[in-house]
Amino acid sequence: MERRAKKVVESRTIMSEMIMPNDTNPINNLMGGNLMRWMDIAAGICAGKHCEKYVVTVSVDSVSFQKPIPLGDVITIECSVTRAFSTSAEVYVEVFSSDIKGGNSRRCNDAYFTFVAVEDDTKKPCAVPELLPLTSEEQKRFDEALLRRQMRLLQAGRIKPEEAVELRESLFPRK
Amino acid sequence: MERRAKKVVESRTIMSEMIMPNDTNPINNLMGGNLMRWMDIAAGICAGKHCEKYVVTVSVDSVSFQKPIPLGDVITIECSVTRAFSTSAEVYVEVFSSDIKGGNSRRCNDAYFTFVAVEDDTKKPCAVPELLPLTSEEQKRFDEALLRRQMRLLQAGRIKPEEAVELRESLFPRK
Amino acid sequence: MERRAKKVVESRTIMSEMIMPNDTNPINNLMGGNLMRWMDIAAGICAGKHCEKYVVTVSVDSVSFQKPIPLGDVITIECSVTRAFSTSAEVYVEVFSSDIKGGNSRRCNDAYFTFVAVEDDTKKPCAVPELLPLTSEEQKRFDEALLRRQMRLLQAGRIKPEEAVELRESLFPRK
Amino acid sequence: MERRAKKVVESRTIMSEMIMPNDTNPINNLMGGNLMRWMDIAAGICAGKHCEKYVVTVSVDSVSFQKPIPLGDVITIECSVTRAFSTSAEVYVEVFSSDIKGGNSRRCNDAYFTFVAVEDDTKKPCAVPELLPLTSEEQKRFDEALLRRQMRLLQAGRIKPEEAVELRESLFPRK
Amino acid sequence: MERRAKKVVESRTIMSEMIMPNDTNPINNLMGGNLMRWMDIAAGICAGKHCEKYVVTVSVDSVSFQKPIPLGDVITIECSVTRAFSTSAEVYVEVFSSDIKGGNSRRCNDAYFTFVAVEDDTKKPCAVPELLPLTSEEQKRFDEALLRRQMRLLQAGRIKPEEAVELRESLFPRK
Amino acid sequence: MERRAKKVVESRTIMSEMIMPNDTNPINNLMGGNLMRWMDIAAGICAGKHCEKYVVTVSVDSVSFQKPIPLGDVITIECSVTRAFSTSAEVYVEVFSSDIKGGNSRRCNDAYFTFVAVEDDTKKPCAVPELLPLTSEEQKRFDEALLRRQMRLLQAGRIKPEEAVELRESLFPRK
Repeated sequence: MERRAKKVVESRTIMSEMIMPNDTNPINNLMGGNLMRWMDIAAGICAGKHCEKYVVTVSVDSVSFQKPIPLGDVITIECSVTRAFSTSAEVYVEVFSSDIKGGNSRRCNDAYFTFVAVEDDTKKPCAVPELLPLTSEEQKRFDEALLRRQMRLLQAGRIKPEEAVELRESLFPRK
Repeated sequence: MERRAKKVVESRTIMSEMIMPNDTNPINNLMGGNLMRWMDIAAGICAGKHCEKYVVTVSVDSVSFQKPIPLGDVITIECSVTRAFSTSAEVYVEVFSSDIKGGNSRRCNDAYFTFVAVEDDTKKPCAVPELLPLTSEEQKRFDEALLRRQMRLLQAGRIKPEEAVELRESLFPRK
Repeated sequence: MERRAKKVVESRTIMSEMIMPNDTNPINNLMGGNLMRWMDIAAGICAGKHCEKYVVTVSVDSVSFQKPIPLGDVITIECSVTRAFSTSAEVYVEVFSSDIKGGNSRRCNDAYFTFVAVEDDTKKPCAVPELLPLTSEEQKRFDEALLRRQMRLLQAGRIKPEEAVELRESLFPRK
Repeated sequence: MERRAKKVVESRTIMSEMIMPNDTNPINNLMGGNLMRWMDIAAGICAGKHCEKYVVTVSVDSVSFQKPIPLGDVITIECSVTRAFSTSAEVYVEVFSSDIKGGNSRRCNDAYFTFVAVEDDTKKPCAVPELLPLTSEEQKRFDEALLRRQMRLLQAGRIKPEEAVELRESLFPRK
Repeated sequence: MERRAKKVVESRTIMSEMIMPNDTNPINNLMGGNLMRWMDIAAGICAGKHCEKYVVTVSVDSVSFQKPIPLGDVITIECSVTRAFSTSAEVYVEVFSSDIKGGNSRRCNDAYFTFVAVEDDTKKPCAVPELLPLTSEEQKRFDEALLRRQMRLLQAGRIKPEEAVELRESLFPRK
Repeated sequence: MERRAKKVVESRTIMSEMIMPNDTNPINNLMGGNLMRWMDIAAGICAGKHCEKYVVTVSVDSVSFQKPIPLGDVITIECSVTRAFSTSAEVYVEVFSSDIKGGNSRRCNDAYFTFVAVEDDTKKPCAVPELLPLTSEEQKRFDEALLRRQMRLLQAGRIKPEEAVELRESLFPRK
C-alpha cells in the first residue's frame, strides 16, 4: 500500500501564550522547562495532525535560550513538519516573543522535535504519511533532516562515524 | 491627538491545545470552564496586541457549548478584534476541534469577549487604537458590535429600552 | 413515571477561594477566565446535586466583570438551581469578594449557567427532577427562567422572533 | 486596647470541590496530600476572616483518612474558628463527601489547623480578635482547645509533662 | 508464607523542589498545604517502594511549621520507612530548606505519615514486607513507632486509655 | 579575586516524582515535555546550589526518550554539575524509572543542561565557583565538557569548523 503524501501546511500549528505568574521562576522570567513543555505540546499536536495518530516524543535536538522572557510577555510557537520517516516525523519549532505593547519583539529560539506515531490499541509504532515539501525553504529543511538524523544516530551509537559521511561534510566541510 | 487605526490582521491570535487528562471532568470531556479560561487567555492576548496595553476582561457575551470535546481532541481557538471603543475592544472568539486523526472535525462554539485597556502604573482605563475593518466580514462584525453593546448596556440597566432602537429592530424586526 | 420535585436548598453550593499568585494575570488581578472556570465548577456541582447525575455545561449567559479582584482577596461563589427543564437545569451563580481584612467587600458579578444531565454509560441526556421554588425570590427566578431560555433559543436561531413574545415584552415593555 | 470578640459564624467558611482527574493518584482516588492542601486553603481563609490579617499555617494536628474518595465525588470542607490565642487562631475543619447522585454520603475526616496572624509589612505576628463561643458545641471546642494546645507544646518540648496536667487527665482519666 | 524483611535504605526517597510563584500564598511564602502535598507524594513513593504496591495515605501525625519558607528557596524532603505493620507502613519525613546561596539553611519540619498498601485490582489492603532496622537511629524510630500507633488508636477511640500503657509512660514518665 | 572550587557532591540534587494523571498524555504515558520541565527544575536547583545564585537555563543538549513511562511509575532525576565556566555551569541529568513494585526498572534518558548565573538585582551574568572533579568519572565528564561546548558554539555559528578540532577528532576519529 502506498503512503499518501501530505503538505506542510496541512499540519502547521500555532500556539500563543501569555507568560503568567504560574509560568515564571523566582526572578520573574519564563522557566526554560515550561517553554520546552509548551514546545512539546505544540509540536506534538503538529505531528499528530500529520500522522493522524497519537504520537510520542522520541527526541529533542539541542535547544538554546537567548534572552529571558519576562512575566507578561506574549509568545507564539509555530510548528511545521519537516520530514516523515517510516514511523516518525520531525517537527521544526520556532518561538517568538514580544511584550504586550508589541515592543521588544524577537525570535527567541528554535528546535527540532521527533515523534513516533503509535497505534491506539497496541501502542506499537505505525506507518505515517510522507511529507511533500513545496517551497524552497521546505525542501531545504526536508533535505537537511537526513543530517540531523545522522547526528542523532551517531550520538546514540547506532551508526558508526564512517557511515555519517554527509554529516561530517556538513559540520566540517573540506575546502 | 488622533488615534491610530489598526487592521484586524495585526492582532489576530491563534491558540492550539490538546485536551489532556488535566483538562477533563470525571466523564473524560473537556470542562466548559476550562474552555472559557483558554478563550479568555487567547482573546486577552488578541486584545492586548491591538491595544498595546495590558487588558482586563469586562464582559463575555453568552456562550453555548454543543457536543462535548473528548480527551485527546485538538482544539484551535481563533481570535480577532471586531471593534474598538474609546477604552475597550471587543474580540470575536471561535473554537474548532477535531480528533487527532483529523476526523470528527467541527466548529464548537463562538463568543464575544470585551476587554478594557489599562495603564501599567495607575491601572486606569486608557485610550485604544481604532479598528479598521477591511473585508466585508470584518465590516459586518464591526457594524453589529453596536447592537451587542446595546444589549450589554440594556442588560446592565445602563440604557433604557427606548434607547436601544437598533437592538430592538435587530431582535424583533418589523415585517 | 412522575419526576420528584426538589427544593433549591437541597443543592445549594458554596465555594470559597483565596486569590493566589497562580490565579492572577501579569498585573496581579484575578483573570476573568479563571473566575469563569471556578464558577463553572461550583455551578456544575450544584446542578449535579440537583440532577443526581453527571452534568455537562451547555451554556453560560453573558457575564460582566466589574472591578478587578486583586491577589490575596477572598471570593465566595454561591450557586442555586433556578429551574429544571426536561433534561437540563439552570443555575444562578453569584460571586462576592472582600479583602482578607473584610474590607472592600462587594458583589462582583453573577451569571446563569445551564447544564444537561447525562447517563453514566451512554452519556445521553436524561430526565432530571423538577425544581420546587419556595420563597418569592426563588419563584421570581423560576418564572424568569423562561425569558432567559427564550433569549438563548432566539440567539441560537432555534425559535423565531414572533415566538419570543414574553422576551420581547420583557426587554421592550409597551408603556 | 481591648481586643474585640467575634462570633464563630462571622468567619465560617465552606469550600466545595469535585474530584477531577487532576486531583487523583494512579488508582483514581483523591490523594491525601491534595485533600490536606484544600483543607489548609479553606482553614486559612477562615482564620484570615477572623483575624482580619494574612495568616500563616503553624501546625496541623493529626489527620486520618478513612475510606478513599473516588474520582467524580463531591467534597464539602467546613471550617470554624474554635479559639483565638494572643496572635493565633485554631480552626476546626470537617470534610464530607458523597457521589454526585448524593449516595455514598459520609463524613470523611476532620482536623485542627492553627494559624498565626501577621502584619502585612513586617510579617511579624500581631494580636487577633478573641473568639466568642455561643452554642454548647462551640463552647466545648473552645474549652478543649487548651488540651490540644498542651499536646502541641508537649510534643514540641516547649512545656514539661508535669505542666500538662489537663492533657494527662484528658488522655488518661483517673477512675 | 514468611514476609521478606527489607532495609530502610531500599526505599529511602529524596525530593528536591524550588519554591515557585505557583506554590506561594499572597505574602510570597510557601503555603503549608502545598508543603504537606509534597510531603505526602514523597512519603507515598517511599512507602510504595517498600511495599511494592500502590499505597493510600491513612494518617498524618501532627505537623508543625516553623519559620516561613520564602519564594525562591530550595527544599529537600527526605523520607524513610520506620516500621511496617501487617498491611501498612509508617514513613518519617524530614524537610530542609535553604536559600539558593546556601544561606539561611535549616531543618523546617518533620512528620510521620502512615500508608496502607492495596491490591491493584481489588484495592483491598494486602500484606507488606517487614522493615529491618539496622542503625541505632533506625532501631529507635522502629521501637517508638508502637507509641505513635498507640496515640493514633487512642485518639481514634479504637483502644482504651488503660491499653496505652507505653504511651502514657512515654508522655508522662514517672520519676 | 580567586574563585573558590567546589566539589560535585556539594550540589548533587535528587528529585523523585510519581507519574500522576496530571502528567500524562491521552494515551496515559508521561509527556516528554513534562519530563523536560522536571529535568530543568532539578538541574536548575543543582546549578543554583553550585553557583550560589539564581540561574537561568541557556541550553539543553539533545535529549532522547526511549520507552514510554506509564502512569503510576516512579521516576528519579539525579543531577550533578560537570564543569563550571566563567559565568555558567553545565549539569548532567540522568532519569531512572521503575514501576511501584520495583519492576520494569531502567535508565530512561540523560541530558546536559547549561545555566548562567545572574545577579539578583541587575540580572547580569556573574562569576561562578570552579568545579573540582574528584573521581575518574567526574574527571571524564569535566574533560568532555569542552567538546560539548564546542558543539554548542559550532551549532550556534559562534566558532568556525576549523576551530572545533577536538570535537571533530571526537566525532570522526582518525584511525
